[in-house]
Amino acid sequence: MLKLPCAQDIIEAHNRINTQIHKTPVLTSESINSICGTNIFFKCENFQKVGAFKYRGACNAILSLSDAEKQIGVATHSSGNHAAALALAAAKNGVKAHIVMPENAPEIKKKAVAGYGAEITFCEGTLSARESTLEQVISKTGAKLIHPYNQFEVICGQGTASLELVKQVPQLSTIMTPVGGGGLLSGTASYTKEIHPHIKVIAGEPAMADDAYRSFKSGHLIPVSNPQTIADGLRTSLGELTYSIIRDKVDDIICVSEKSIIDAMRLIWERMKIIIEPSSAVPLAAILENPTLFKDQNIGIILSGGNVDLGKLPF
Amino acid sequence: MLKLPCAQDIIEAHNRINTQIHKTPVLTSESINSICGTNIFFKCENFQKVGAFKYRGACNAILSLSDAEKQIGVATHSSGNHAAALALAAAKNGVKAHIVMPENAPEIKKKAVAGYGAEITFCEGTLSARESTLEQVISKTGAKLIHPYNQFEVICGQGTASLELVKQVPQLSTIMTPVGGGGLLSGTASYTKEIHPHIKVIAGEPAMADDAYRSFKSGHLIPVSNPQTIADGLRTSLGELTYSIIRDKVDDIICVSEKSIIDAMRLIWERMKIIIEPSSAVPLAAILENPTLFKDQNIGIILSGGNVDLGKLPF
Repeated sequence: MLKLPCAQDIIEAHNRINTQIHKTPVLTSESINSICGTNIFFKCENFQKVGAFKYRGACNAILSLSDAEKQIGVATHSSGNHAAALALAAAKNGVKAHIVMPENAPEIKKKAVAGYGAEITFCEGTLSARESTLEQVISKTGAKLIHPYNQFEVICGQGTASLELVKQVPQLSTIMTPVGGGGLLSGTASYTKEIHPHIKVIAGEPAMADDAYRSFKSGHLIPVSNPQTIADGLRTSLGELTYSIIRDKVDDIICVSEKSIIDAMRLIWERMKIIIEPSSAVPLAAILENPTLFKDQNIGIILSGGNVDLGKLPF
Repeated sequence: MLKLPCAQDIIEAHNRINTQIHKTPVLTSESINSICGTNIFFKCENFQKVGAFKYRGACNAILSLSDAEKQIGVATHSSGNHAAALALAAAKNGVKAHIVMPENAPEIKKKAVAGYGAEITFCEGTLSARESTLEQVISKTGAKLIHPYNQFEVICGQGTASLELVKQVPQLSTIMTPVGGGGLLSGTASYTKEIHPHIKVIAGEPAMADDAYRSFKSGHLIPVSNPQTIADGLRTSLGELTYSIIRDKVDDIICVSEKSIIDAMRLIWERMKIIIEPSSAVPLAAILENPTLFKDQNIGIILSGGNVDLGKLPF
């Protein structure tokens, strides 16, 4: 039986991580509101530590460890934001982090993780190589696995972004997030639908990585393998735990084209002067593709992160 | 005899424009502080309306018009942020704006100015063509010239950014701005050195457009023509009014290389996840080039703007 997070778990997670995270600002743009015909409130997790909401979940996972577990350390495999988030959250709390990274991960990410003092084990780029290497690391060290999304403490941590958002903007009628592995979306839905059931929780997902959409609509978990969307943070598939929460609590999932993602990303860069990664642009892309659906509302969008390779922009 | 702005003029300008501008946030970055060995507080005028501090001066100029002048309208020549700022500030207050723009101005800037409802007159790209075309427009329409920097009301408006900054961060020991025509720098010095004389006011300037540095050091106005720095907002030279304020009130001007400007710009993009134009990066470039000079202080930097062509990034 899976343990599902309730709002109280997310409130406790927030109390736990409160002093270690940035309380990120909410920004608005008159010109984007005018283009979309609705009022959008952007929760800027691109300004979060390590440049992504992932720091919330990693931090909650670290601070939820027992003293014995803290002594031994944590482990994960990731080539992206979760690796940096776990490495930094561990370092800040004197916990050893073992990170399995594919050899072909971007140099800048390898450096960031190493810079936070994590122990990196490199492996081949395939999922099976990553998983088997991680198993070896864990059996050798006894470190506790911190999954990037399919884990109770991680989901509770991610849910704290929506807890802050509804306090910062009490008049919201809808909250939107992107969905990849589903940690942010399931955390958001767990908190919001219990405390503010009138607020709709809607996710945007790249049509090229539409496992959450198809799982949600069909009623059973359908993973995708190796999708190629530009939204590199959303190439993962739902896990059993995130799926069961999303199935029960989320109002809708909307798929968007790659072109809309790039258009929405560019709109935010140009009009708001902030840097977001493609994954962050997916909810706005859903609004751009469905203007009548979202007309004249107060919509909160969680901008998931801002880590992009400035040498490889899509515009 | 030139009329020089005093702090009270800038306080009055702030009262005048207060409801029409964004009170921009001050952001900090742990990692940039650690790289620079000092504490930097970034005043984000890249989030100001039209994406630049120029909106403050344009807005104050418009709101300082007599009723008769408002009926007739305003005029300027500019290919950049001042054109957009004056066009929008005029439109918001029901004033007609006549903007002379070079034919080779970027399409996106032409569109922005036209979108704000300004009357555009195109001319050749040379300064003399721009000035003579503007004279014709003014003699035909009777519109009042609003200079991009060398004008009392404009300087008072630009000074309001530092008025906000010292309230947002009371512990500053230094305020830094870039210097091009000198509107922002002279406004900042006029306010700060009168109200907080212990705060140093220091400008950064591209070595490739070092007219302010040479004028400041030599004691007489030395304009440059057609400098080629990447900091496109700083290619203009000081005017008589901005020069006389800067000569008397500014503590120092530091020249920086093009490479440092690009390095500083990239640092802010990558670490702070905000978009700034190259001109905004010049003060941080001065700190990067002179770390011992700025060590262990509380430094406010006014980020002047965020308007960049995303298709032409220097990295």
